[in-house]
Amino acid sequence: MSTVIGDSFASAELRAVPGSAIRELLSLTERRGVLSLAGGLPATELIPTQRIAAAIDHRLADPASMQYGPSAGTRSAREAIAAADGLSSAHQVLLTHGSQQALFLLAHALLDPADLVFVDDPAYIGALQVFAGVRARVEALPITATGLDTDLLAQRLADGARPRLVHTVSSFHNPAAVCLDEARRVRLAALADRYGFWIVDDNPYGRVRFAGVEPTPLHVLSDRVLSLGSASKVLAPALRVGWVSGPPEVIDAVERYRQSVDLCGSTLAHAVVGELMSDEVWWTAHLAQLVDAYSRRCGALIDSLTTHLGERALFAAPQGGMFCWVRVPGVNTTALLGEAVAGGVAYVPGSAFAVSMDAADCMRLSFATLDESTLDVAVARLAAVVAHAAS
Amino acid sequence: MSTVIGDSFASAELRAVPGSAIRELLSLTERRGVLSLAGGLPATELIPTQRIAAAIDHRLADPASMQYGPSAGTRSAREAIAAADGLSSAHQVLLTHGSQQALFLLAHALLDPADLVFVDDPAYIGALQVFAGVRARVEALPITATGLDTDLLAQRLADGARPRLVHTVSSFHNPAAVCLDEARRVRLAALADRYGFWIVDDNPYGRVRFAGVEPTPLHVLSDRVLSLGSASKVLAPALRVGWVSGPPEVIDAVERYRQSVDLCGSTLAHAVVGELMSDEVWWTAHLAQLVDAYSRRCGALIDSLTTHLGERALFAAPQGGMFCWVRVPGVNTTALLGEAVAGGVAYVPGSAFAVSMDAADCMRLSFATLDESTLDVAVARLAAVVAHAAS
Repeated sequence: MSTVIGDSFASAELRAVPGSAIRELLSLTERRGVLSLAGGLPATELIPTQRIAAAIDHRLADPASMQYGPSAGTRSAREAIAAADGLSSAHQVLLTHGSQQALFLLAHALLDPADLVFVDDPAYIGALQVFAGVRARVEALPITATGLDTDLLAQRLADGARPRLVHTVSSFHNPAAVCLDEARRVRLAALADRYGFWIVDDNPYGRVRFAGVEPTPLHVLSDRVLSLGSASKVLAPALRVGWVSGPPEVIDAVERYRQSVDLCGSTLAHAVVGELMSDEVWWTAHLAQLVDAYSRRCGALIDSLTTHLGERALFAAPQGGMFCWVRVPGVNTTALLGEAVAGGVAYVPGSAFAVSMDAADCMRLSFATLDESTLDVAVARLAAVVAHAAS
Repeated sequence: MSTVIGDSFASAELRAVPGSAIRELLSLTERRGVLSLAGGLPATELIPTQRIAAAIDHRLADPASMQYGPSAGTRSAREAIAAADGLSSAHQVLLTHGSQQALFLLAHALLDPADLVFVDDPAYIGALQVFAGVRARVEALPITATGLDTDLLAQRLADGARPRLVHTVSSFHNPAAVCLDEARRVRLAALADRYGFWIVDDNPYGRVRFAGVEPTPLHVLSDRVLSLGSASKVLAPALRVGWVSGPPEVIDAVERYRQSVDLCGSTLAHAVVGELMSDEVWWTAHLAQLVDAYSRRCGALIDSLTTHLGERALFAAPQGGMFCWVRVPGVNTTALLGEAVAGGVAYVPGSAFAVSMDAADCMRLSFATLDESTLDVAVARLAAVVAHAAS
């Protein structure tokens, strides 16, 4: 996962940042004929380009929408997101260049080198890159069937661990697909209040729920929560709009730092997101359509896994999001990847996400990008490769 | 210029970043009736929204243009910029989220804390913020009438100074309006080759020249040059497209770091910039129109300064860009700003840009944002405030 950059030009900060295994793997999917279950790309055909084009047209009538904007984002977009996320004030919201930037800005605003950070295991790779970049001490907490292991966290805190920040993908985990349940949410929030750490609730997938009950948002349970959201999965990645919400003093600090990072976001993209999220009838219908489509794709993936891999594949059925986390006992998924690509299918090996755990026999499969029948072809290819490896 | 952030949440990195005086001042311009000569905003009426809208329409026909893109930028945009900037390969170009991000990424990729950096004096504030953020040691070199003082740089190098990087706004300086002349370019490039430092040639205004001769681009004179460009001043700030070009090994390092910062830019914005800069007939005509308009505005500003301030104002006539740097001997421009805003006009005081120099009697005036007759009203107001202060 890490490549050393020549010392002649790279700083210590850069040297600490591992390469993105996902990015490198995505290049594999460009090979002709490879069906990719690897990327975290939303379905292209579900991107509402017509509605986005209409919103852009509305804005371009006023050339001022092409000027510089405030570092925290345009007012209308902050208000729309505050309303959609149940926040009392638009000042609690800051728009970022994708939610990856929100995580980057937060880490730089909140952490000093050697600060302790707890992350998920398996973890979102983008978070590991950010925390490595600020040279935080990273310790991993296992993801259980009901999310982050808050029992172990409580134990580590009782033992004297003093994290500055706990990062978790709370809903439809990337890559483990599980959700943090209500009891663990209450526990995590109480621990943050007691020990004074920040919770970064990384939540790009929360609106894509097709089963189970909506849990209480973490920010309702504690004031020490910074929530990350994204337009990439529910509108379009190319808008490059994400956001962070939380206490105004943290938002103000992030805003100040952001000025040196890239001044501000796109007034136009913010206006588009603000308009679409405020158009309640359209937004509700759009999300329903998205949830329905991903539900069908997820069902298709599970059916295909059952049909083609049978007892070889162990997984829990996702209740939302874009991913399924599959264990194939006895199979080293990293070693198998080259053969899989040769066989016309790609996935992300579990080892790419593992911090301390052994995820050698795991893989992350996305059901978001391909349609149902193509998913079946992809899984059939995967099963053939697995069968060959196991024989 | 600096506000202390509470220690309870801000990291050392954030504490090192001074607030943006310009951003804070821009809020003044929102007061009703204030004519602002302060901001670095291009003329809203010169933003080619129709042509941008057409390019967006072309792209939205293919929903794939709303997906994630490569971290270095889309191929078509890299090629268009390489061609426009006279580079041999698109691999030498990386698109960023505005050119401020290019500077931020470069500083993080090339510098370690305590590395020595030479900057202009007066300096671009965004550069000071970035170098403070990475805790570089910053030393200032005076901006002469022909750009960065390369004689003093040579002296400092001979004395043993070993900068890792020299940052300068080479053409139509922000804020000093001057250009680095041919002899100083050759000298600077030779010093970089001899002493092994990087030159960051920050050049958002180079295409807006209305007088004088086009100088040799620094990257032609040395391999140790990283050139920053921007679509903000010549197309539209809200596209948030800037770029850095330079040796592929630096571009690769920046690309890797960029993955953790915000993954990638907007495929759509890149496609728009690529299309517009490749449309040679339109691009040439558009730039000519821009240059003509800014030339007229600059002329109007100078006429108004001569008419209303007479011998009180000392300045050199700009040959391009967006700014005029004006000395008003005996007047403290920082102290005067409140009165100026009360009198209906805003500017940026010289002290905001000063590193080691005394710029207490200087001010930066932008001629880009307001039209000719409004510029005259603004300067008349300014003259009244100056006259009152001097009386």
